[in-house]
Amino acid sequence: MNLPDVVTLSPTPDDYAYTFGGRAPLVTVRPGTVVELTTEDCFGGRVRGFADLPSAVCAFPYLNPVTGPIAVAGAEPGDTLAVHFVEITPARDWGVSSTFPHFGALTATHTTAMLHAPLEERVWVYELDTAAGVCRFRARNSDFTAELPLDPMHGTVGVAPAGGETLLSITPGAHGGNLDTPEMRAGTTAYFGVNVPGGLLAIGDGHARQGEGEVCGTAVETAMRTTVVVDLIKGGGPAWPRLENDRYLISTGSARPLEDAFRISQHDLVCWSGELLGLDVLDAYQLVSQAGLAPAANVCDTNYTMAAKLPKSLLGRTRAYDGLHDRLRETAATYLRGR
Amino acid sequence: MNLPDVVTLSPTPDDYAYTFGGRAPLVTVRPGTVVELTTEDCFGGRVRGFADLPSAVCAFPYLNPVTGPIAVAGAEPGDTLAVHFVEITPARDWGVSSTFPHFGALTATHTTAMLHAPLEERVWVYELDTAAGVCRFRARNSDFTAELPLDPMHGTVGVAPAGGETLLSITPGAHGGNLDTPEMRAGTTAYFGVNVPGGLLAIGDGHARQGEGEVCGTAVETAMRTTVVVDLIKGGGPAWPRLENDRYLISTGSARPLEDAFRISQHDLVCWSGELLGLDVLDAYQLVSQAGLAPAANVCDTNYTMAAKLPKSLLGRTRAYDGLHDRLRETAATYLRGR
Amino acid sequence: MNLPDVVTLSPTPDDYAYTFGGRAPLVTVRPGTVVELTTEDCFGGRVRGFADLPSAVCAFPYLNPVTGPIAVAGAEPGDTLAVHFVEITPARDWGVSSTFPHFGALTATHTTAMLHAPLEERVWVYELDTAAGVCRFRARNSDFTAELPLDPMHGTVGVAPAGGETLLSITPGAHGGNLDTPEMRAGTTAYFGVNVPGGLLAIGDGHARQGEGEVCGTAVETAMRTTVVVDLIKGGGPAWPRLENDRYLISTGSARPLEDAFRISQHDLVCWSGELLGLDVLDAYQLVSQAGLAPAANVCDTNYTMAAKLPKSLLGRTRAYDGLHDRLRETAATYLRGR
Amino acid sequence: MNLPDVVTLSPTPDDYAYTFGGRAPLVTVRPGTVVELTTEDCFGGRVRGFADLPSAVCAFPYLNPVTGPIAVAGAEPGDTLAVHFVEITPARDWGVSSTFPHFGALTATHTTAMLHAPLEERVWVYELDTAAGVCRFRARNSDFTAELPLDPMHGTVGVAPAGGETLLSITPGAHGGNLDTPEMRAGTTAYFGVNVPGGLLAIGDGHARQGEGEVCGTAVETAMRTTVVVDLIKGGGPAWPRLENDRYLISTGSARPLEDAFRISQHDLVCWSGELLGLDVLDAYQLVSQAGLAPAANVCDTNYTMAAKLPKSLLGRTRAYDGLHDRLRETAATYLRGR
Repeated sequence: MNLPDVVTLSPTPDDYAYTFGGRAPLVTVRPGTVVELTTEDCFGGRVRGFADLPSAVCAFPYLNPVTGPIAVAGAEPGDTLAVHFVEITPARDWGVSSTFPHFGALTATHTTAMLHAPLEERVWVYELDTAAGVCRFRARNSDFTAELPLDPMHGTVGVAPAGGETLLSITPGAHGGNLDTPEMRAGTTAYFGVNVPGGLLAIGDGHARQGEGEVCGTAVETAMRTTVVVDLIKGGGPAWPRLENDRYLISTGSARPLEDAFRISQHDLVCWSGELLGLDVLDAYQLVSQAGLAPAANVCDTNYTMAAKLPKSLLGRTRAYDGLHDRLRETAATYLRGR
Repeated sequence: MNLPDVVTLSPTPDDYAYTFGGRAPLVTVRPGTVVELTTEDCFGGRVRGFADLPSAVCAFPYLNPVTGPIAVAGAEPGDTLAVHFVEITPARDWGVSSTFPHFGALTATHTTAMLHAPLEERVWVYELDTAAGVCRFRARNSDFTAELPLDPMHGTVGVAPAGGETLLSITPGAHGGNLDTPEMRAGTTAYFGVNVPGGLLAIGDGHARQGEGEVCGTAVETAMRTTVVVDLIKGGGPAWPRLENDRYLISTGSARPLEDAFRISQHDLVCWSGELLGLDVLDAYQLVSQAGLAPAANVCDTNYTMAAKLPKSLLGRTRAYDGLHDRLRETAATYLRGR
Repeated sequence: MNLPDVVTLSPTPDDYAYTFGGRAPLVTVRPGTVVELTTEDCFGGRVRGFADLPSAVCAFPYLNPVTGPIAVAGAEPGDTLAVHFVEITPARDWGVSSTFPHFGALTATHTTAMLHAPLEERVWVYELDTAAGVCRFRARNSDFTAELPLDPMHGTVGVAPAGGETLLSITPGAHGGNLDTPEMRAGTTAYFGVNVPGGLLAIGDGHARQGEGEVCGTAVETAMRTTVVVDLIKGGGPAWPRLENDRYLISTGSARPLEDAFRISQHDLVCWSGELLGLDVLDAYQLVSQAGLAPAANVCDTNYTMAAKLPKSLLGRTRAYDGLHDRLRETAATYLRGR
Repeated sequence: MNLPDVVTLSPTPDDYAYTFGGRAPLVTVRPGTVVELTTEDCFGGRVRGFADLPSAVCAFPYLNPVTGPIAVAGAEPGDTLAVHFVEITPARDWGVSSTFPHFGALTATHTTAMLHAPLEERVWVYELDTAAGVCRFRARNSDFTAELPLDPMHGTVGVAPAGGETLLSITPGAHGGNLDTPEMRAGTTAYFGVNVPGGLLAIGDGHARQGEGEVCGTAVETAMRTTVVVDLIKGGGPAWPRLENDRYLISTGSARPLEDAFRISQHDLVCWSGELLGLDVLDAYQLVSQAGLAPAANVCDTNYTMAAKLPKSLLGRTRAYDGLHDRLRETAATYLRGR
């Protein structure tokens, strides 16, 4: 296998985007290109200690910077843009998390509008130990500490939306965006339907780790050094983002209420698996009902996101997208050997 | 360790209950008693083949029979009734699943009321091979087959509701009931707040396995031979059902919309873990946000159910409910050795 | 027209019911009987001033007492129980309202579970001036006062639920119950599907007036002297409560999320009007879409309730339920003249 | 009073916008200017008879054209843009309505994703008789006809969104947009928070009339000749669109689930009325709870919209926005006299 093209993308502070759509590409790459990129954390790196309350140091709409967009040569509406995550490595030895006024799953928000004052805004600082593979939680109001497994991922990955829309990077939807699913880790391939020429991929919101649901509204936020392979399939663009790793097919849905996010993700998984296995829709509905997993991704963002997972062991020799995930795995291995 | 008391409970068809509440106990047991019981499937055993459409052979409200209630001597409102599942074994070598008119996550229902005709009502029959540990799916409209891991569980476990209510056994809620979470498998201890003298535990709705969300509305339904240890903690009754296995603390929430089920389960897990670890509520919120799992249980029943899971590795030497789960594990082992 | 039978029903404190279902009737009446009854307020009359915080003076589940049940001779499952409200008159010259911890539309609740402390619990006392037709609001933290039109109604009207369920009187549903719609005023006929022999009607929760949505969780609560005509139609029991006044057909739906309450009410109104006007379902859908009204009833109870209204002017000479509303209007007039 | 400036705006087909945001203004006007404009219907005028199925003759995203944007000189982020509707007159003697595949309140949709085939797509044609003040409904599958009161309004009125977003004109939100409330009729003043210089007002989606909820997804759609007065208040930009007519203050909320739309609208009305009347938040909560109305606006769009209404009779001599509504009424009268 030939060495893939490699492109690097290290945005300056002024380069960051805060929306999907509405931006010219920073770079255009050929399908199959490896992109080495850096991302800033969701606070733009401005929350560095307990005193840096996000509501004081961050200003709307300059939240959740994303790196990109990256145009893929030849991508046309209706195509499928594939992004394989090769490596996601924290760029700092610390991460932060916080509550934020009127944001999160267990607080009144601007849309779940109530008469309560905001919960306390509090910052937590995590030590990230990549050698040990842990991030260290320290309680603020007691001496409790815990080591949690490092599990780096990107909360925000997506393409330009359909219909000429420009959406804040904090919003998840059919274009991807702020899905905030822990499944978006190294070893995963994500598939997006292309809505505009070039597709216009952008990536941000690195998490050293994240619980399912991102309950308090933020994960262990940190800057990342990330390597992806970007590829293109002509046609076949999925209506909602799909993910694939070595063990699972994963459909996502982003909507409110949460059951609609669930419905979208399950509906897509029923259709996807039915198509792959030659099942009619009710047989696929039955199979997914008994064999599927359904973890929450986020229940805090402007849309909520659910994931629907089916073990690939059910597929036999069938491969989604004609085996692209396996080929991207090989590209990644070739790249890593050649580095 | 002394051998525990053992009671058997094999209801006749007339013995089955279809509600939580509103029934006199079939039996009263002392705390710590092992109960060997049998349960019928959610269709009352009347769906035995493709031609047995549930809407034709089952009559509301005689759906989802439960075995019980079992009164626990000394249980008073405010106490905690604990049920440890020792064994859950399919009582047949087959199970069934089906769609049902206007029931399920991807169909119009009587409350998500729409103008669509019902989806096709279709029955699937699974071969249950306990020796091989699999249940065999056969598509109805193709020759596709698949072996899924056998993972027996009970969809319906609960106590009499508070406030004098009598609720259909198909409804999940604060009293437990039709939670339909795959976590209710052997090796798990479930905790319920006691609302009436005796608590009045009932168990039913065995599933040879179930996907998360129980998308189509039914799992691989089968009759079960099940052994539980029933125990009592004075006081401390949780507001919502909690589960514990060797690896996780699990809170549940049952409500609509699905985000409220999520909120309840996460809120309870924050409070529970905060209390166990001596964390204030925001520190516990943060810990759960980064370390927790949030799988769907059911998104089809009259309330939806979410589970919130926290690894017990975070607890150090702390034990929930003063280590009752470990002791019930020992009771189960003693019972199994003595059988 | 002959004078109708008249029965009086004035429960003592021990007579009140707190559930629908699970109670023997206080009285059995023949169809067409006028029932003069009294109801206590939702606090059982225990909140009489600013210092009587409901959470202190009321004890779950002794909330929202209802008068009844009243059995209707000959009522069988599947029939339609009709209740025409002749008069609803405050039995006191004062009413109260309050916030209540974790109850209401703009607060975290036990199911919309959040980490906020409850809002302040505050009581308001209204002067009810039936002569002037007003209730006088006085702000607690300023000297603002306002006169609001008196518009007496019952928040809670319903029958025994289906399936052997017993439900708290605070819950609205297919059986009626705590619908909390201002449409339940004098001059209105309500129709309920009968689920058990006798139907078992109960009425309570008088409001001197109520805004749409009952936002803070309580209305202007007061005891009532109320006169109804109770009647029976063999067959035709509606799936959800329906109301009719001189100008509107009104369908109700009670569920969560609120769009499901909306869907149920609109679906029923589409079916009801389609049947009355001989329209196919899509033509009825279209007519309701352009001609209907859709006010919120309550968005605070254990289920939310929406009303769907269609002007009877569209019906031409067609009459719902074969003109029963008009006949009950006449019965009411005969009774009032004869009193 | 001097005659106001009058500007006319009659877009050609190429002039129409399909988004809020992302467009340069067609015209800039001074505060207080009367704008006479024309709007096309939501189908772009392409649905003219039974055979013109919208899914065949309309192409995403060219749906719901809006006229504008209109920049208001001096409008800066944080200001309040006021639009007073002087006249809304159907520009044709016919209007159309339709079902649309997977769109509407009583059908599976792309987000309330289900396995049902779409409902039948059907077009209805209404005769609009402005002289008689009626629109004539004709059933498609029977000979039923009905005359409904003409009540012209605009479904879509809004400004450029915050945060650099560009949103499809079919979406309602904090910026206004496709609110689809029948309250947006002549005689009403709407207030929007300004997010970008000039505010960038756009108007479209004329309805000859609309039921509350817009249940089937479309109203009686028609082109309009509409006159508005556009004005500016420095500062005070509301978080969500507000409306005012001679009798009511009206807050709106647009979100999913529907209870969040309700919460937003009620929260805003509580704050708005509290501020006007000098009430603390709980006293205002109480007043709105007893005196407010809460009709559905739309329960079919990408967000749902609720309205929250409070009678202005409660305000005494207090006037919202310093009496601007009354002054715009006078401007309108002056304009009409001078025409």
